[in-house]
Amino acid sequence: MLHILSDKYFMEEALREAAKAAVEGEVPVGAVIVSQGRIIARAHNLTEKLRDVTAHAEMLVLTAASDYLNSKYLENCTLFVSLEPCVMCAGALHHSHIGRIVWAADDQKRGFERFGRELLHPKTQVEKGLMAEESSAMLKKFFNERR
Amino acid sequence: MLHILSDKYFMEEALREAAKAAVEGEVPVGAVIVSQGRIIARAHNLTEKLRDVTAHAEMLVLTAASDYLNSKYLENCTLFVSLEPCVMCAGALHHSHIGRIVWAADDQKRGFERFGRELLHPKTQVEKGLMAEESSAMLKKFFNERR
Repeated sequence: MLHILSDKYFMEEALREAAKAAVEGEVPVGAVIVSQGRIIARAHNLTEKLRDVTAHAEMLVLTAASDYLNSKYLENCTLFVSLEPCVMCAGALHHSHIGRIVWAADDQKRGFERFGRELLHPKTQVEKGLMAEESSAMLKKFFNERR
Repeated sequence: MLHILSDKYFMEEALREAAKAAVEGEVPVGAVIVSQGRIIARAHNLTEKLRDVTAHAEMLVLTAASDYLNSKYLENCTLFVSLEPCVMCAGALHHSHIGRIVWAADDQKRGFERFGRELLHPKTQVEKGLMAEESSAMLKKFFNERR
């Protein structure tokens, strides 16, 4: 298996997106969507720049992936995201029927999971914790610099 | 009190948006956001046209209202929407800190409420049932014509 096809490779790309957000003064969360072993969409949090609470990385990357595939549904895609999705993003992911979600760090305050996995589509596979330390470190650094 | 300032007036405008959606072959859901007694944003469901599951009326109207006010937060605004928001939209409304939500028909299958009011911001006031019959009738007609 080529390194380029590994989950870690794709999560590194999601973290690269998160790092772009930090540089722009946005809470560093990044995401990529993969279809057939290729990244078809990438995005990072833009809520400050756009002054729009809906502009989370996951929302932007879902819209971009649907645009690329010309399909509302993403059953055969995987989302790699650097932080556990919030309720809004979990709801959007449900609507998309996305095949698989891999997130890095948990978000105990705003993550969707405390409301239950049933916020996601029953067919969506979930994995978490991949590169969680790297993602948490980036978030901590961002907030520490702003205190 | 002028008729133009009543909740019913604004819900009629949300239903007018829903009717536009139906004409375009979209599930008929419409929304308006009101600030200081004026409609500052209006939208209807565009998920089919945009092939984008995030393009619910509420998401589009939140983005438009934030753009108009140049603010992520909408504490002093009221959302009028023809159907109970889904989980995604409830999450977005939470992020927006919107002051008040009035919806018409309940959505027992996809509405957020079965997961609990805590999906919304604790300061957000909620009212429901205003013109629920009109909204339900429009939805039923739409789905019956497609069966």
